[in-house]
Amino acid sequence: MRKVAIVGVGLTKFGERYDASLRNLVSEAGIASFQDAGMSNKDIDALYVGNMASGRLTEQEHVGALVADELALSNVPALKVENACASGGTAFRQAYIAVASGMHDRVMALGIEKMTDVSTSEATTGLGGAGDKSWELDDGITFPGLYALMARRHMHDYGTTEEQMASVAVKNHANAYKNKYAHFHKIISIDDVMKSKMIADPLKLYDCSPISDGSASLIMVPADDAKKYTDTPIIISGSAQASDTLRLADRDDITSIKAARIAAEKAYSQARIKPSDVNVAEVHDCFTIAEIMAMEDLGFYKKGEAAKAIFDGETGLNGRISVNTSGGLKGCGHPVGATGIKQAVEIVWQLRGEAEGRQVSNAMIGLTHNVGGSGSTAVVNILKRGD
Amino acid sequence: MRKVAIVGVGLTKFGERYDASLRNLVSEAGIASFQDAGMSNKDIDALYVGNMASGRLTEQEHVGALVADELALSNVPALKVENACASGGTAFRQAYIAVASGMHDRVMALGIEKMTDVSTSEATTGLGGAGDKSWELDDGITFPGLYALMARRHMHDYGTTEEQMASVAVKNHANAYKNKYAHFHKIISIDDVMKSKMIADPLKLYDCSPISDGSASLIMVPADDAKKYTDTPIIISGSAQASDTLRLADRDDITSIKAARIAAEKAYSQARIKPSDVNVAEVHDCFTIAEIMAMEDLGFYKKGEAAKAIFDGETGLNGRISVNTSGGLKGCGHPVGATGIKQAVEIVWQLRGEAEGRQVSNAMIGLTHNVGGSGSTAVVNILKRGD
Repeated sequence: MRKVAIVGVGLTKFGERYDASLRNLVSEAGIASFQDAGMSNKDIDALYVGNMASGRLTEQEHVGALVADELALSNVPALKVENACASGGTAFRQAYIAVASGMHDRVMALGIEKMTDVSTSEATTGLGGAGDKSWELDDGITFPGLYALMARRHMHDYGTTEEQMASVAVKNHANAYKNKYAHFHKIISIDDVMKSKMIADPLKLYDCSPISDGSASLIMVPADDAKKYTDTPIIISGSAQASDTLRLADRDDITSIKAARIAAEKAYSQARIKPSDVNVAEVHDCFTIAEIMAMEDLGFYKKGEAAKAIFDGETGLNGRISVNTSGGLKGCGHPVGATGIKQAVEIVWQLRGEAEGRQVSNAMIGLTHNVGGSGSTAVVNILKRGD
Repeated sequence: MRKVAIVGVGLTKFGERYDASLRNLVSEAGIASFQDAGMSNKDIDALYVGNMASGRLTEQEHVGALVADELALSNVPALKVENACASGGTAFRQAYIAVASGMHDRVMALGIEKMTDVSTSEATTGLGGAGDKSWELDDGITFPGLYALMARRHMHDYGTTEEQMASVAVKNHANAYKNKYAHFHKIISIDDVMKSKMIADPLKLYDCSPISDGSASLIMVPADDAKKYTDTPIIISGSAQASDTLRLADRDDITSIKAARIAAEKAYSQARIKPSDVNVAEVHDCFTIAEIMAMEDLGFYKKGEAAKAIFDGETGLNGRISVNTSGGLKGCGHPVGATGIKQAVEIVWQLRGEAEGRQVSNAMIGLTHNVGGSGSTAVVNILKRGD
């Protein structure tokens, strides 16, 4: 398989984008990535779109063809990839395989979700489809409820506290404040989180990522061609994905996401690195407890030790490891299909030294961790600065 | 890239499967394909699921993880691929790329659609998402309406008649009658088609494929490993895909599907064959006019000459070329995400000589043609009998 590099990235402002349609968001991110790569729409020879629920949220399926049409690509193979909240990370990996295989040479991976055209309750019901409709949703549980179960068990087994979970949100809002693309630009305190409305005990409103609109795009080429497009190609040195039961209750352990552990192990092995080599990571903090589990599943901390470390500031900007410098899903926002691609865009900026106002010093190796459902899917990608 | 072979296939009965859930259909097709390949669920190392509208039709997204869970695969990378009615063909091609690249060794491509849990009107609205929501559906047109426009123009430009279109349905029902998996087992006459209820002038009820439930599955491996699993491996000698505008009105010509012409040309070139080398083809007859256009787009007939040839019986079983021996979408049924995989399953059976009661003599090369929306996506795959 060929070595693959990212040579262009683009992002929209995340948030409640009542000013923009699905097509508008696609244009905003897609064109930015063309400009960044110094390419035109006619240069792209395949398109992978990450999107979860356009059918339910906008009554538009066939979003692969829609994006190819909106960006006026040249009749290229285009498709939508769906894996709930890991749709973006999955699209990234499929685009990577397409280039690595030799099948395509200049591939776009674009993530998109337009979520605010429906009510919050309709969006929440739509997102519920990431879990098991028959054996979870029909019994009345929502996604905050599933993660609340994981949080309670993590608290029980490891002594994790609500204040430690709150510290994840505080850190991620602080990072988002420095990111012009973020949904939220609001510094919050642990006290703010603790006093926010209870959603699913022990998760409060500020423990939950928001419902956002947004799109993110990147362009991959064979590493041998990368210097034609950029002085700082970013190499994909590992890309792995794993699955687990759809229903949370069928798992061995709900204080950890097994699919993420498996994917991380494979990605580290491909990239020939160990967790401590990672300088900067974007992880899937759909709820604050999810970031704590991610730190442990990715091997950054031993089981039961991440919550205290986060609370102590070890994962803040330029800490022991800088986590969710974009603001994460919590602060930057979570347009689900776009999230996995946005994570990679942020890592590209960090590795290039272009993360204005939130740059991690000497970032050489970055990682993205994107989870679908309550952990039924996980994708881990490892990026490094090219030579 | 590695040469890839299909070593196992499985299919459910298509139809109004009120007896079976989404999960039940997946099991039925998936287990049949394991048995056919002499593999167990633990042998599979990646899963590609073709599905269009599970979110709207069953409130279940994340169908990649659901299928991996239902078939008890081993935490493998699993994902859903969506391209409207070409979701199955697209999943096939992505699975092919995954094996050809060297990324995965034993890959399942499974198509599934459960459509009858909602009303026909809700299903029709859901299918409308294959077109342009803002610029077609919101203006009131349905999918039969879009294909009716194509039919009218084809009649105007080439003198195609309603009786010639009807002959497609008559042929495909005759083939379906010989296929135990088909939705319909009912011989019909041209007169029956002509007298059936008008849906969108000139398309009548019997010009339209039905709303069906069903699933289809196949397993691919590197061709070098194929003999471990089967005496008659089927080689994928060409696989290509193309896109076009989402909206029909933006096309240069609506009497032909440009994406299909582009995909066919690439697939023939990869396979180093010409159209006349194809013995058996499964084409996308969502409406009878679509099969006529397919015959022309695939180069089997010159533009404007296919309708008469079909009417004259040239594409019947063991005719000049045998088309839609399964019964096609019209006779075998059209569970949209399953269709593209079912087409490949039928071709595998034909090339192996296992198409009981509807076998094409000396079938050596077969083709599948799967279209999404009104032609915004097309996938063409070419299969041949291995040595």
